[in-house]
Amino acid sequence: MRDTVLIREVGPREGFQSLERVVDTRKKLKLIELLVQAGMAEIEVCSFVRGDRVPQMADAEDIASALVAQASVQFRGLYLNERGFERACSFPSLINDGWLYTAMSQTFLRKNANSSFEKFLESLGGWLDCFERASKKLHGLMISTVFGCNDEGRFTEDQVCEVVERTLEKLHEHGAPSPIELSLADTMGWASPVRVTHLCSSLAKRFPELELSLHLHDTRGLGIASAFAGLKAGVRIFESSVGGIGGCPFAKGATGNIATEELVLLCQEEGLSTGIDRTKLLEAARFLEVEVGIDLPSRLYRCEKALSELNDEE
Amino acid sequence: MRDTVLIREVGPREGFQSLERVVDTRKKLKLIELLVQAGMAEIEVCSFVRGDRVPQMADAEDIASALVAQASVQFRGLYLNERGFERACSFPSLINDGWLYTAMSQTFLRKNANSSFEKFLESLGGWLDCFERASKKLHGLMISTVFGCNDEGRFTEDQVCEVVERTLEKLHEHGAPSPIELSLADTMGWASPVRVTHLCSSLAKRFPELELSLHLHDTRGLGIASAFAGLKAGVRIFESSVGGIGGCPFAKGATGNIATEELVLLCQEEGLSTGIDRTKLLEAARFLEVEVGIDLPSRLYRCEKALSELNDEE
Repeated sequence: MRDTVLIREVGPREGFQSLERVVDTRKKLKLIELLVQAGMAEIEVCSFVRGDRVPQMADAEDIASALVAQASVQFRGLYLNERGFERACSFPSLINDGWLYTAMSQTFLRKNANSSFEKFLESLGGWLDCFERASKKLHGLMISTVFGCNDEGRFTEDQVCEVVERTLEKLHEHGAPSPIELSLADTMGWASPVRVTHLCSSLAKRFPELELSLHLHDTRGLGIASAFAGLKAGVRIFESSVGGIGGCPFAKGATGNIATEELVLLCQEEGLSTGIDRTKLLEAARFLEVEVGIDLPSRLYRCEKALSELNDEE
Repeated sequence: MRDTVLIREVGPREGFQSLERVVDTRKKLKLIELLVQAGMAEIEVCSFVRGDRVPQMADAEDIASALVAQASVQFRGLYLNERGFERACSFPSLINDGWLYTAMSQTFLRKNANSSFEKFLESLGGWLDCFERASKKLHGLMISTVFGCNDEGRFTEDQVCEVVERTLEKLHEHGAPSPIELSLADTMGWASPVRVTHLCSSLAKRFPELELSLHLHDTRGLGIASAFAGLKAGVRIFESSVGGIGGCPFAKGATGNIATEELVLLCQEEGLSTGIDRTKLLEAARFLEVEVGIDLPSRLYRCEKALSELNDEE
């Protein structure tokens, strides 16, 4: 098992997208700069959705053109349709390898993307053509609401395996290989340690060719414990947000992604390297709080802040 | 390994003690009532400290005399000196078996109790006499700052084992048996899953006669993950606070104990019974927020609240 963990920072995309207000582009860029300085290897910097519908992400082009490709970090733009993918591909600063997005919850797919799993399967041919035209390889498959959904409840391991299997079959029918990464996204915070253990174990047995990754939310307080179970199950790729920002549009007020700095601390305690400087990462969190004005849910951030204020008093 | 977990609720004591303001006695009693209705088996209801120094606990006598002993729940009052123990013993509503309190951090002992580990050892004879006069058995030994302290850093497993060993030796010199329970209190939130695993394993090997319990704080975001590691190591007694209230006087602004409702959810996911009704427990948390006016750190509480508001809107 590898002793390094890849953390994909999604704060600039998922965190800012979940805010009601629109954050200034310069502040977004400054946060990204601080995250790069902290040693993040991958950062999701924007989303190529429709700016009139999602004003928080309307500056995707401005973000992508202001960034400069660099060896130490991969910048990514999220896309959910072919138009978005094409927009993303026009920027050399972004690494836009092929990603496919579906979900376990049909309610979620309908509300979020006016889609369904069947429609997703039908769309695969188009996506593969799209990736080929842009000379991008298929990299990942993300399954949202993988542990459960507030509308439909829990999903079983067998149900998840079936979604993966049917997706792979369809890809193979089109002559495409399996994706490299299978991202398990716990969109509404339904994961728990035991469920992570069991799902990862089932998937690893049935699809040993796929590298599993976890995108966890701390909505019900079990986020970091679930990440721990993921580490124990051999997962070495995680998505998280600096300061723990982010959230799900279907659970207003609920907390967001697991906090990157807490995940980094967990990995360090486990003797796993992330390449991230926790002190510098906390500076990025501080920027979010002070300059962007976000009340951060991260406990580690608040603890370090309180301790540093205490030291200042002494 | 038992499939039931005993959760000792410390919110009414540690939670209210950590607030700057003093909570009305009637509201404290109402919270305790709600906790009893939720099925809590043990509740720390007050602390017999000096009311002029700790005004938050000045109503300890009022709380203890208002409560009525009942079969389904044990009410406890905290005490840190013999005078406090004697005060606690005068109330038939309270189960005040013998507890001994020390800490790994000498700085913490000095600041908190003007004491030291050596003074603690010297005090054991007096404590045993005190328990005997009150016909109480020695039940527990709590070691605070057991994983680390903001002033002194981490403590090793060997250091903790030595503290336990020297305490047991001294107890045996006085002709007393070992305590039944060894409570590992992570006062400043220094625990992590791997450290819980290792410490519990070392202690269980060297002191198989002691039942281990964990008192965890979520100061750095690893509280519930550490509780999970505790469950895996066989720990079946935990202390926690409804709503996640509480905190450490030496880390202002830092979050408090792990939230009881998140711990209950974790246990349920693991297939372990706590005897606690989570819905009723969330009602107790809601009372804390709405009627006592505390901003609760519990993620599960905030999620359930957001979901119920969403349902009301629909």
